[in-house]
Parts: sequence; C-alpha cells; structure tokens
Amino acid sequence: MIRTCALTSAGVIKYDLSLRSLKKPDIVWYWVDFDQPSNEESQLLSKHFRFHPLAIEDCLEFVQRPKMDFFDKYVFIVMHYLNQKTLSPEEVDVFVGSNYIVTFHKKSVRGLNNTWARVRKDTALQQGPMTILHAVMDQLVDDYFPPIYRIEDRLNEIEEATDSDSSVSDIMDEVFDIRSDLSKMRRTVLPMRDLLYRILNSERIAHVNDQKIYFQDIYDHLLKITELIEANREFTSDIRDNYISINSDRMNSIMMTLTVITTIFMPLSFIAGLYGMNFTNMPELRGHYNYFIVLAVMVLISIGMTLWFKKKGWFRFSKRSKL
Amino acid sequence: MIRTCALTSAGVIKYDLSLRSLKKPDIVWYWVDFDQPSNEESQLLSKHFRFHPLAIEDCLEFVQRPKMDFFDKYVFIVMHYLNQKTLSPEEVDVFVGSNYIVTFHKKSVRGLNNTWARVRKDTALQQGPMTILHAVMDQLVDDYFPPIYRIEDRLNEIEEATDSDSSVSDIMDEVFDIRSDLSKMRRTVLPMRDLLYRILNSERIAHVNDQKIYFQDIYDHLLKITELIEANREFTSDIRDNYISINSDRMNSIMMTLTVITTIFMPLSFIAGLYGMNFTNMPELRGHYNYFIVLAVMVLISIGMTLWFKKKGWFRFSKRSKL
Amino acid sequence: MIRTCALTSAGVIKYDLSLRSLKKPDIVWYWVDFDQPSNEESQLLSKHFRFHPLAIEDCLEFVQRPKMDFFDKYVFIVMHYLNQKTLSPEEVDVFVGSNYIVTFHKKSVRGLNNTWARVRKDTALQQGPMTILHAVMDQLVDDYFPPIYRIEDRLNEIEEATDSDSSVSDIMDEVFDIRSDLSKMRRTVLPMRDLLYRILNSERIAHVNDQKIYFQDIYDHLLKITELIEANREFTSDIRDNYISINSDRMNSIMMTLTVITTIFMPLSFIAGLYGMNFTNMPELRGHYNYFIVLAVMVLISIGMTLWFKKKGWFRFSKRSKL
Amino acid sequence: MIRTCALTSAGVIKYDLSLRSLKKPDIVWYWVDFDQPSNEESQLLSKHFRFHPLAIEDCLEFVQRPKMDFFDKYVFIVMHYLNQKTLSPEEVDVFVGSNYIVTFHKKSVRGLNNTWARVRKDTALQQGPMTILHAVMDQLVDDYFPPIYRIEDRLNEIEEATDSDSSVSDIMDEVFDIRSDLSKMRRTVLPMRDLLYRILNSERIAHVNDQKIYFQDIYDHLLKITELIEANREFTSDIRDNYISINSDRMNSIMMTLTVITTIFMPLSFIAGLYGMNFTNMPELRGHYNYFIVLAVMVLISIGMTLWFKKKGWFRFSKRSKL
Amino acid sequence: MIRTCALTSAGVIKYDLSLRSLKKPDIVWYWVDFDQPSNEESQLLSKHFRFHPLAIEDCLEFVQRPKMDFFDKYVFIVMHYLNQKTLSPEEVDVFVGSNYIVTFHKKSVRGLNNTWARVRKDTALQQGPMTILHAVMDQLVDDYFPPIYRIEDRLNEIEEATDSDSSVSDIMDEVFDIRSDLSKMRRTVLPMRDLLYRILNSERIAHVNDQKIYFQDIYDHLLKITELIEANREFTSDIRDNYISINSDRMNSIMMTLTVITTIFMPLSFIAGLYGMNFTNMPELRGHYNYFIVLAVMVLISIGMTLWFKKKGWFRFSKRSKL
Ligand SMILES: [Mg+2]
Ligand SMILES: [Mg+2]
Ligand SMILES: [Mg+2]
Ligand SMILES: [Mg+2]
Ligand SMILES: [Mg+2]
Ligand SMILES: [Mg+2]
Ligand SMILES: [Mg+2]
Ligand SMILES: [Mg+2]
Ligand SMILES: [Mg+2]
Ligand SMILES: [Mg+2]
Ligand SMILES: [Mg+2]
Ligand SMILES: [Mg+2]
Ligand SMILES: [Mg+2]
Ligand SMILES: [Mg+2]
Ligand SMILES: [Mg+2]
Ligand SMILES: [Mg+2]
Ligand SMILES: [Mg+2]
Ligand SMILES: [Mg+2]
Ligand SMILES: [Mg+2]
Ligand SMILES: [Mg+2]
Ligand SMILES: [Mg+2]
Ligand SMILES: [Mg+2]
Ligand SMILES: [Mg+2]
Ligand SMILES: [Mg+2]
Ligand SMILES: [Mg+2]
Ligand SMILES: [Mg+2]
Ligand SMILES: [Mg+2]
Ligand SMILES: [Mg+2]
Ligand SMILES: [Mg+2]
Ligand SMILES: [Mg+2]
Ligand SMILES: [Mg+2]
Repeated sequence: MIRTCALTSAGVIKYDLSLRSLKKPDIVWYWVDFDQPSNEESQLLSKHFRFHPLAIEDCLEFVQRPKMDFFDKYVFIVMHYLNQKTLSPEEVDVFVGSNYIVTFHKKSVRGLNNTWARVRKDTALQQGPMTILHAVMDQLVDDYFPPIYRIEDRLNEIEEATDSDSSVSDIMDEVFDIRSDLSKMRRTVLPMRDLLYRILNSERIAHVNDQKIYFQDIYDHLLKITELIEANREFTSDIRDNYISINSDRMNSIMMTLTVITTIFMPLSFIAGLYGMNFTNMPELRGHYNYFIVLAVMVLISIGMTLWFKKKGWFRFSKRSKL
Repeated sequence: MIRTCALTSAGVIKYDLSLRSLKKPDIVWYWVDFDQPSNEESQLLSKHFRFHPLAIEDCLEFVQRPKMDFFDKYVFIVMHYLNQKTLSPEEVDVFVGSNYIVTFHKKSVRGLNNTWARVRKDTALQQGPMTILHAVMDQLVDDYFPPIYRIEDRLNEIEEATDSDSSVSDIMDEVFDIRSDLSKMRRTVLPMRDLLYRILNSERIAHVNDQKIYFQDIYDHLLKITELIEANREFTSDIRDNYISINSDRMNSIMMTLTVITTIFMPLSFIAGLYGMNFTNMPELRGHYNYFIVLAVMVLISIGMTLWFKKKGWFRFSKRSKL
Repeated sequence: MIRTCALTSAGVIKYDLSLRSLKKPDIVWYWVDFDQPSNEESQLLSKHFRFHPLAIEDCLEFVQRPKMDFFDKYVFIVMHYLNQKTLSPEEVDVFVGSNYIVTFHKKSVRGLNNTWARVRKDTALQQGPMTILHAVMDQLVDDYFPPIYRIEDRLNEIEEATDSDSSVSDIMDEVFDIRSDLSKMRRTVLPMRDLLYRILNSERIAHVNDQKIYFQDIYDHLLKITELIEANREFTSDIRDNYISINSDRMNSIMMTLTVITTIFMPLSFIAGLYGMNFTNMPELRGHYNYFIVLAVMVLISIGMTLWFKKKGWFRFSKRSKL
Repeated sequence: MIRTCALTSAGVIKYDLSLRSLKKPDIVWYWVDFDQPSNEESQLLSKHFRFHPLAIEDCLEFVQRPKMDFFDKYVFIVMHYLNQKTLSPEEVDVFVGSNYIVTFHKKSVRGLNNTWARVRKDTALQQGPMTILHAVMDQLVDDYFPPIYRIEDRLNEIEEATDSDSSVSDIMDEVFDIRSDLSKMRRTVLPMRDLLYRILNSERIAHVNDQKIYFQDIYDHLLKITELIEANREFTSDIRDNYISINSDRMNSIMMTLTVITTIFMPLSFIAGLYGMNFTNMPELRGHYNYFIVLAVMVLISIGMTLWFKKKGWFRFSKRSKL
Repeated sequence: MIRTCALTSAGVIKYDLSLRSLKKPDIVWYWVDFDQPSNEESQLLSKHFRFHPLAIEDCLEFVQRPKMDFFDKYVFIVMHYLNQKTLSPEEVDVFVGSNYIVTFHKKSVRGLNNTWARVRKDTALQQGPMTILHAVMDQLVDDYFPPIYRIEDRLNEIEEATDSDSSVSDIMDEVFDIRSDLSKMRRTVLPMRDLLYRILNSERIAHVNDQKIYFQDIYDHLLKITELIEANREFTSDIRDNYISINSDRMNSIMMTLTVITTIFMPLSFIAGLYGMNFTNMPELRGHYNYFIVLAVMVLISIGMTLWFKKKGWFRFSKRSKL
C-alpha cells in the first residue's frame, strides 16, 4: 500500500493525495509511505521518484546495516527497529529531500503508524521532513528499551533463583539464548548509533542544525541501550562462570562423600570376606573371642579412617559446601 | 521542596528568597535547588524557568547517562552519584546559566546539602555558579571512593582466607555480587569521566578556564576510580580462576585416594570371595597351609599395587596437594 | 592464457586484439586479463607493460594481503576472493591506468569471467577501467555471503540439535573447524575492507569520485560480512561454553547416582559379609529371629541414607538435570 | 627533613643553605628536597613556596596517579616508583620552576638520594632543574626492571618444574600473587608512560627540547617495561591454562584406572558371591568340575573386558598420559 | 671485527679501507660494519664516530625495542631479527648519515653478510646508505617467515593427529611452548612494524621518498607476519579449548561406564552376600526352588537397571562419544 500526506500552503494537512498532485506548487512538503508495498508499487521508487538504483536495491533486499548515503538532491537512510516478538531487526528505509520524505518498509511498523496518525493533530510535527524523520526514529529507538529491560529482569530472576525447580541445563540454554538475542540486538544498535552520530555531525543535512538537540536525544538513548546490552552480556557470562565454579565445588563434595564411604567400607568388607573363606585349616576362626577381636579391629579401622579424613579437613569442607 | 540562595550585590548570601525576587537587579547570582520536588514544583522548570522540554524530560525520567547539553543561554548537565547503600547510581540534574544555577534531584543528596550549608560561610564558594557546580560535583565524586575501598578490602580478605568457615559457594556468590556492583559503578563512572573531559575541553562553558585546575582535580579522581574499578574486576576474575584451578587439583587428590583404595582392595576382596564359594570339590581349600599361602599372595598383591602407584607418582602428588 | 578486450573510438567492444594493437590511437580503453598465465606470459608484465618489479613480485608470489600501491602512472591493487570450496583466500591482482586495466590471477575466477562476458552487452560496463574494477570487485565480494550464511545455518542446526546422533567430540571438532574457517575469512575480509576504505578516501585515484557511491556499496557489504564473521565466531564460543556447562551438570548427575548407590549398598554389603564369616563362636548367628533383626536394620539403614540424600537435595537435583 | 642544594653563580654547588638564602641573586638554581617531612615542614609548601592548594593536597594525600599539572610559574609532576620489597607504588612529587626544583616524598627514596649525592661531582647534572628531574626519574624508572626480571625468572622456573615437590595449590597461589603484583605495577607504569609522553610532547615545559633525547630514553624504558608486564601477565594465564588442561588429562587417566579395575572385578566378585550363598539346593555346587568351570568363566570375563577396553583405546590413552 | 666498504667517485666498491681513509673526498659513501666487535672496537663508536652516548648505550646493552631516534646529523635505528634456532630476537643497530651507514651487532648476522657480499656485484645496491639499509632490513624481515610457517604446519599436524602416540600432556606442553614463542615474536614484530611505519611517514629521513615503495614492501611483510602470529595464537587457544571440551566429554563417558557397572552389580552382590550369611535360622535358604527364584530376581534387577539407563539415554550417549 502507498499512502500520502502533505502540508498545503494553507497550512492544512491533506491525506491520500495522488503522487502527481504532490508536485503542485501549493504543497509545502509531503510524506509518501510505502507500507508493505507490492512489487508494482515498489517500482515507483525508480519510475516516479527516480531514486538511485543502489538505494533502491538496498530497499528491496534485506542485507543492509543502518547507514546514510548522500545523493545530489536527497539523503537515503536505512534504519532498523526491533521486532518486539522475535527480537530480530526489521528495516525502514527513508529518502529525505528538501520538501519531501519517502518511507519504505516491508512490514507494518507500529511506531511509524503512530506518527502518521499524529501528523494531522500535532503542529510540532508539521514543520517538515526532518521533523517527521525525527518522530519516526524516536519511536523506533524507544522500542528497544522494553525487550532489554525484560531481559535484565529475567537475568536477575535466574541469578536469584539458583535453587528453583527448572532443570539446570534448561537454565544454561536460556542464558545462551539470551546471549544470542543480545548479540543480535547489538549488531543492530551499534550501526544505528553510528548513523545518529553521522546525522549529528554531518554538514550535508539541511535543517538538522535546528533540530540537533532532538537527534541528540535519540543518540543519548542509543548510548544508553548500548551500555545496557553490554552490561547484560557481561551478566550472562558471569552467571555462567558462577554456575561452573559452584558446580565444581558441588562435585568435590559429592566425590568426597563417595570416597569417604568407599575408603571406610572397602577394608572392612575385605576383612569380613577374609574370614568368610572356607579353608579347612584357618586357626583364627576357632578362638572363642576371635570374632569379637575382629569386630574391635573393624571399629578401630573405622575410627582411624574417620580421624584421618577429619585431619585432612574433608568433613569441614563437605559441610561448607551447599548443594 | 524548592529552596533558594542568592548573593546580593552587597556581597551577602540570602537564603529562601522567592523565585520572583531572584530576578531583581541586586542579585549577583542565585542557586535554586529542587530537593525531592513534588509534581507541581517540578512544573516550575518549564513554567518559571522555561527550560527546554527535552532537558526537563531528562530530569523527570531516570534513563539518563551523565552528559552535558548546550542550550542557547544555559548548559544542562546530568550527573550521577553513588547511593552509598545500594551502590546504584542516583541522578542530579543541573542547569548552569551566566548568573544562576538550578539543581534538581529526586532524592536527598548529602553532598549537595553540605555545599548548601557551606555557601554562607565559605567565601571561595560565593564566586558564582561554576564554583557551586564544582563544589557539588567534587563531593559527589569523592563519595565513590569509600565503597570501592570497602570492596577492595573485602576481596583481599576473601583471597587470604580460603580456609575460612563460610561455604565456598557463598564465597563465589559474593564475588559474583561484587562483580555486578563493580559493573554497575563502571557504567556510572565512565560517562562521568567523559562528562568531566568535555567540561575541561569545551570552549562553550563560560568561566571554566579560570577553574580548569579545579575540574582537572575531579577528573584525576575519576581516572583513579576507573582504574580501581578495573583492577578490582580483574581481581574478582583472578580469585575465581584461582579457586577453579585449586579445586581441580583437590579433585585429583580425592579421586586418587578413591582409586588407590579401590584398586588395592577389589582384587583382595575378589580372592576372599573366591575361596568363600561353597563348591563341594575345591581342592585348594583342603591343603594345610593353603590359607596362609593365600594370605601371603594377598600381601604381595597389596605391596605390588602400592609400588606401582608409587612409581606412577600418585602418593607424592597426593601429599603435595593441600585440601 | 592472456585475453584482451578493448573499446574502440567507434564505441564497439573488440575482443582478442594483440597487445601491440591495443596501443593504437583508436582504442579508448582496454582490458588485459592474465588468466592462469604461463611463466612466459607472466613475463609480459615486465617486458611489455614495464610494471614495477615489486608489484610484479607481489603478483607472482602468494604472500600478499589485499592492498593498494600507487605508482606514477597506475595503481596496483591486490584483492582476495573466497575459494568457494576450501574457503581459502585466492588472489586477483589489478593494475589500473588512465585508459587500461590489467588483471592477473593464477586460478580461473568465476566472478571475473562473468564480467568479461558482460562487457560486450552492458553499456554501463563500457565506461572505462574503474567501472570494470568495480564490477569485478563487486562480484568477488558478493561471493563471501553464501559460505557465511551456510556456516550460520550449520551453527544454528548444531545449537538446536544437542541430542542428535552424531558423537559429541565430532560436533566439537566441527565447531572448531568452523572457527578456523571464520578466522581465515576474517584475515581476508578485514584488509579487503581497509582497501575499499582507502579507495573511497584516496585523492589519488582518478574518476573514483564519480563512482564513489558504487564502491561505497561494496564497502557496505564488507562491513556487513565483517559483522557476520564476528557474530558467528562469538556463536561458536557460546556453543562451546554452553556445551561445557551442560556437561559439567551432567557429570554431577552421574556422580550423584554413583554415590547414592555406593553409599547405600556398601554398608549393607558389609553387614551381609560380616555375618558370612565362619568363626566358630558368633553368638548373633544362633538367635531364632536375629536374621530378621539384621534384615530390619538393613532396611532402616537404606531408609536413613535415602532420607539424608533427600535432605541434601540430591534427588531433586538429579531430577532437574537432563542428560 | 628538608635539605637544600644550590648552584651559585661562581659555579659551585652548596648544600644546606637556608630557604631564605636560596632567593639571593647569586643562586643560579636550587633544589629543595622534602625528605619524609614532618607536618610543620610540609606546611612550608604553602607558607614559603605558595604552591597551589590542589597541588599541595596531592602531595599530602596518597591518591594520585602519575600526572603533570601546569601552573603559571611552575609545573607540578607526580611520579611513582616501585617499592622494591612490597612492589607497591610509592609517590614522589616534584615542582619544577624556571630556576628551582622542589621534590617531596614521604619515604626515603634511594634513587633520589643517589642523585643528591652525585650533584656535587657530576657537572652534567648541574645544568639546571630539568637535568635533576631527568636524573631522578631515570633512576626511579630503572628500578622497575629488577623486580620484573625476577618475576620472569620465577615464572620460567615454575613452568619448567611442574614435577617439583611444592604443593600444586601453593604454585597456583604463587602464580595468582604474581598476577596481582603485575597488575599493581601496570597501574603505576601506564600513567608513568603517559606522563613521559606528555613531557615529550608538551610545548609548555621550558628547556625540555634540549633534553628531549634524554626523556625519550626514559620513555623507551617505560615502553619496554609495559611490554614485559603484559608478556608476563599472559605467561601467568598460560601457565594456569596449561595446568588445568594437564590436570583434566590426569583426571581422565585416574578415572580410567578406577573404571577398568571396577568393571573387571565387580562381575567376578558377584559370581564368587553367588556361589558363596548357602541355599540348601544349589545343584551347580555339586558337580566335580564345576568349580573349575566357574574359574574358567571368570578368566574369560577378565580377558573379554580387557579386550573391550583395549578396543576402546583406554590402555593406550592411560599409557600416553603422564602424571 | 670491524670491516669497511666504500664507493669511490670512480664508481668502484672498495673493501677494507681504514676508518681514516673513509673520510677522503673521493669516497662517495661508505659502510662500516661492527661484526661481533671487541670492547676496544666498540669504543670507536664514541671515539671515532662521536655518536651520542645514549645511542651507544643502546648498542652496548640489550634492552632495546626496535626504534628510531633522530640526531642532528644521523638517524639511529634499532632493528630486531629472529634467531632461527632459539626464536629469540637479536639486535642490529644502524646509524645512517648522509653519506655513510654504520651497522653494529654482537652476533654474526647471516642476512647482513649476504648483503655485504652482494654490494660489490649489485649496482642497485650501490646507490647509497638507504639502499643498504633497505637490503639489510628486507633480509632480516624475510627471515621471520620460515619459523612462523613451521609453527603453522606443526599446529595443523597437532590438530589433525589427536589420536597419535605422544602423551597428551606432552602435546599441551608443546602447544604452550609454541604460544610462548609466538608471544616472543610478537614482542619483536610489533615494534618493527611501528618502526617501518615511522620510516615511511617521517619527513626527516633524507632520500626515503625515492625508496618509499621499497620500504612499503617490507611493511607489507610485517603486516602479514603480524596477522600470521595473531592467527596462530588464536589457533593454539582453540586447540586447547577443543581439547578440554573433548576431554570433558570423554570423562562423562568413562564415568557413565563406571556408574552403570556399579549400579547394576552392587545390588546383585548385596543379595548374594545376604544369602551367604550363616544365621542358623534363615527360612529362605531351605526352599527347593528358592535359589532359582533369587537368580530370577537378579536377572530382573539387571534388566530393570539396564532399561532405566536406556531411558535416561546413557547408552546412546556412551556410544556417541569417541575416546
Ligand atoms: Mg532493504
Ligand atoms: Mg526517544
Ligand atoms: Mg522521548
Ligand atoms: Mg546468587
Ligand atoms: Mg536457541
Ligand atoms: Mg532525553
Ligand atoms: Mg532524570
Ligand atoms: Mg575530590
Ligand atoms: Mg578534594
Ligand atoms: Mg592465596
Ligand atoms: Mg545477587
Ligand atoms: Mg587532586
Ligand atoms: Mg600474488
Ligand atoms: Mg555487491
Ligand atoms: Mg550489488
Ligand atoms: Mg539449545
Ligand atoms: Mg580440521
Ligand atoms: Mg547496497
Ligand atoms: Mg601524595
Ligand atoms: Mg634509565
Ligand atoms: Mg640509562
Ligand atoms: Mg612445560
Ligand atoms: Mg596473596
Ligand atoms: Mg636507551
Ligand atoms: Mg643493544
Ligand atoms: Mg622482503
Ligand atoms: Mg622481497
Ligand atoms: Mg580435529
Ligand atoms: Mg618450555
Ligand atoms: Mg611485496
Ligand atoms: Mg586484539
């Protein structure tokens, strides 16, 4: 679908004018939005607007990082926003000329629709293409915060609840997936940040100076988002490292239990086995008190082993380490 | 609460003037402090002072990194200080004009209150808005040191006392929490440092040249804090790595004990079991000295195994590694 | 083989002219391609074209990173492309003069052959040497994408299918090999990116300004490729770390099973062995109900041990962790 | 203690002049050394020399990184040297004016004392404050080398002697402490290096141009020291990683021994136990050759197990790995 | 030994002139080589050539990184080359004046000797000091390649042959030593690269412009060497990580075998022991079929355990993982 919106010299916002009529002299500026355009509609980028083939190629394929290209009479900007469900980047392409702005996107963009609806009422938005660009971009960037805060909350939950019911390998898998999501976001946010930096410092964008403080506000948000992403990535690796070191401790405790039990009972069982042998001539078996002597020896062995482990500090350690 | 303080042309500091009277010609400069303001008081930022909406938005929401924005007639600065209890950053916002300074903070700020009290007595502080800014900032930054030194001491304690009574997983958890705190601090300190750098190098802040050496002093402190944070972060990861390598050594020692015991007693127990069988025809059982021969064989097996382990170096290793 | 192609002043593309005739005045520009040249043919670089010995050395040996050297009358460019089978870099060397371009490569280059075939038909390609350079380079760079996307898909497959049939050490080996491939690619892509950056920013390449937007398009692709390589390298190390932490969890679960079984049955077996001894005087053996008392004690021991493990949380843990 | 030293216009070095007399016109330049000053002596920094309060604060507290501050008539430099025993940084503060140098240090500084003694004899040292500064700094920096070389030697020793008598956890602890020492040094060396860089490149230090090559020599040393520190830090982490991977190999070998023994003897012991049961009707026990048949079965089981382990490669592995 | 070589105005290369005669007017340029000089010969650096004491100090001691110092009438360059046997850096010091070059080295340098021999025949070398400098440097840098390629081959061998006969800890030790060698090389190559960068970009070296392309060629090689070193360092850590993850997998497989065997046979052995007890009143022993019932129960227990392990996936896992 292609929809249009224009400010007439009478100061009125008109929607749904034809592309032709947008070029009439009483149009102060206009905005054309390619909203999930069909192939035929997409061809208007070249047929009607005569944009550069490389820019059009960038619109039609999705292999672009956020960026800004300068052409003679317009600026071409590629922006990303975060699909709130998949946390994958989606693309919005923008052409900004002196008196027009053209937006192009293959999916419906909530933030852009909001702006579209607000143009009619909000006179601040009616100042021209750069204001529209700022309004759209501001909303796309604001949408990065909720998923990051959701991730941060989830990581805090995971960190606190190490004794929850869910399987540990499930938790590791979730931490791993969160790491992937953060990487994916970072790949989108870093070039967005660079894009804003260029917009702020470029001498070639008309009118941006008047609006610098507004784009600076978006840039602030992107800096903040970058920091949140980095902090949360560090958080995931800390959780993993923490988990591994606690696990290694737990393993020590388990192996100590096993070793203590084995080391005490193996010699005892051997002695029992020894006197269970059926040799016809085993003099020890015949003494009246020998059974009790052997029992006493077994008790002494147990006590000796226990003292030895105590001296080596195994019991203290075993107590110290929680499962 | 909103409180005011002003220097009159008579060189006297007056507190609690009304906002109106601050604009009188005999006021050399004034300081308005929004101390935990109510919503109505906050609206004075726009109604009375007519500050830029974006700056006011930054005051009202807490999503800001420390930063500095230049407006036509004033500079807007966002600073962070460390909540001494939670080690979380808290925000102080400052507007500095040629003859006024406005501070805005949602929580009571000890360092700022100190400065407020000192203005009356300390003539050095009465030179103007930049002096106030420096005094407040200096105190906020100085407050970073105590928690970092506390962390450093605690890490040294942990490092020394590996044989303490507290559970190892508790210790790892504590190291983990310290790491988080350090990350949180770094996220606040780094942009504070960049802010100071910009204040030092900006050509747009009036009077800063006279005071450069004072802001340089704060900048020095922030450099030092940054280094302490980095050093302590490295320290935590070294403690964790050290712990893991010691643990892996301990595990070896435990497993060796288990294996030595098992390897010696399993064959012996098997032999004992063998001659405990009840077959009617077991010729070995009948010889007069066979029992003693078997005992001797068992002793030989124990000696042989022990020598074999000795040759493989297991006993030396086991002795070498402390629990 | 050496092949030639030239644009005559009549606007016609002629193939297979002799090297001599390329210098005739009616030749607007020409392209000489050294396609897997013999030693004799390679010598024409110095004998016929009189290129600088250092540049020729770089053509003949393969020790070069992508780079650009400026000589008086021509620019020498070394480019790499990815051998689609081995993922190793292969070299294409290019000399670009004001009215000629010479390409040199020891293997057949599919992307270059495509361009060669297109020159005749595609008038856009006939503008001169820089257009040819761009067309070749564009194809070489586009060929980086398929192997990277293949790697990305394979890593996603590996990540999803942790319970597949293939041996785990095979998987780790594959991840390791993918890491090597990504490193190898990065070593080629980073200098290619720097090369493009220099082409875009160099003041010494004639005509590049007219074509800047085209080389910018290649540069965009190289930025994208760099990001994909880095992201996939991170992905491999995340997979490995994830695997190690899951493995450590699995080991805990295995060792707990072993320890529970051993700790329950060792004391029981010892008691059984005790009353299997053949001492002539063992009063306990004679009581009518003693056997049943011992059985009861054994049951109590099992229950006690089980409760103890339950209290320590071992069963919960064991349930939580999937194999 | 405060000590003085001055060059008179007669070209003679005089020691122990009073602070007053240093301002006489026949003094070409003078050096005042605050050597472990008392509180009263420290106050002379402000009372007599009238240095800036911020610089004096930096002298009196130890929270300073090496740095250089420019004041109107003098330069204030903070340098660190390495306490040879604790490897902690100690501070030397220097004020350099056009015809004087003031040094301030709370501990006795060997390198500075050497220079003090040499002034009288060494005419090269008598050229002025910058020469003194260079001489002191050169000695302080040279003192970094011996402890680093000592660390390097110790790490080489540790690396070679993995089979020494000292406990492994002691070794890990030592490596850990060496890492801490290296971090501590780096925190001192890096700002020292930056300080030298600034001295070399600052346009505001008089006379430094004549002496540039001398300060360059110190800068070279600091670059070298930085590299040595980094290399040795890498060395420590390599030692640790190496140790962990060898340990994990050793553990495999131990567990294999345990598993082989257990897996062979458990079934054998079970069979022996089986025929040790006292059922009244166990037909197998009565056959004349059954005992020998069972013995043969046991031998076959042992051989079978051994072959199975051989096929799985366990024995080869076990042989391969040294303890 | 000191040897000399000079170009006379007659265009003839003369060897072994005395130091005095080199200053005669018919000498166009000369080269003095201090080849493993004695102490007396070393003193000629100051006595005859009057080089700066700091430069001479750098010659006599080995603590220098590659670097370049500018003096009034000459440039002092410190270069490193790789001792082909120990892979340690060795130093060659060079003084380059307008019409002379002095080289100084404490060991015999093969690459330099080659150049010395070629001067007579190779007219290209006779152009002057910068040509000599280039020739020597080119050979020293070319000598970095063979050891790096040897390391790369060895690492590939190690990676492929994980099932070789050599002990695993030997392999880890070798990888560790290779890492050290690579670190040592890097410490030499990086400053060499910076040195070349400075030579290429310095405005103070006469005649370097004519030869820029030649030094650029050396710089290319150093970039390539740097990349090879980094890539191989990454390779070593990948090998180690790979090994650790495979080892952890192997350990799982071993422990599963142990646990399966123990868990199956422990209960069986206990039952056998139970009925091996010698109580006078054990009713179960007397039944005619009880022995066979117990045998059946044992078979059922084995089958049950096996099914349980099968359900937990242990056998599949054990099969999957290669030793
Ligand atoms: Mg697109
Ligand atoms: Mg926003
Ligand atoms: Mg907003
Ligand atoms: Mg926790
Ligand atoms: Mg997933
Ligand atoms: Mg904002
Ligand atoms: Mg706020
Ligand atoms: Mg302070
Ligand atoms: Mg202070
Ligand atoms: Mg310790
Ligand atoms: Mg916590
Ligand atoms: Mg200070
Ligand atoms: Mg080549
Ligand atoms: Mg392309
Ligand atoms: Mg394309
Ligand atoms: Mg998964
Ligand atoms: Mg491979
Ligand atoms: Mg494109
Ligand atoms: Mg101090
Ligand atoms: Mg020195
Ligand atoms: Mg020296
Ligand atoms: Mg070794
Ligand atoms: Mg210590
Ligand atoms: Mg030196
Ligand atoms: Mg030397
Ligand atoms: Mg070379
Ligand atoms: Mg060469
Ligand atoms: Mg392999
Ligand atoms: Mg070695
Ligand atoms: Mg070359
Ligand atoms: Mg790096």
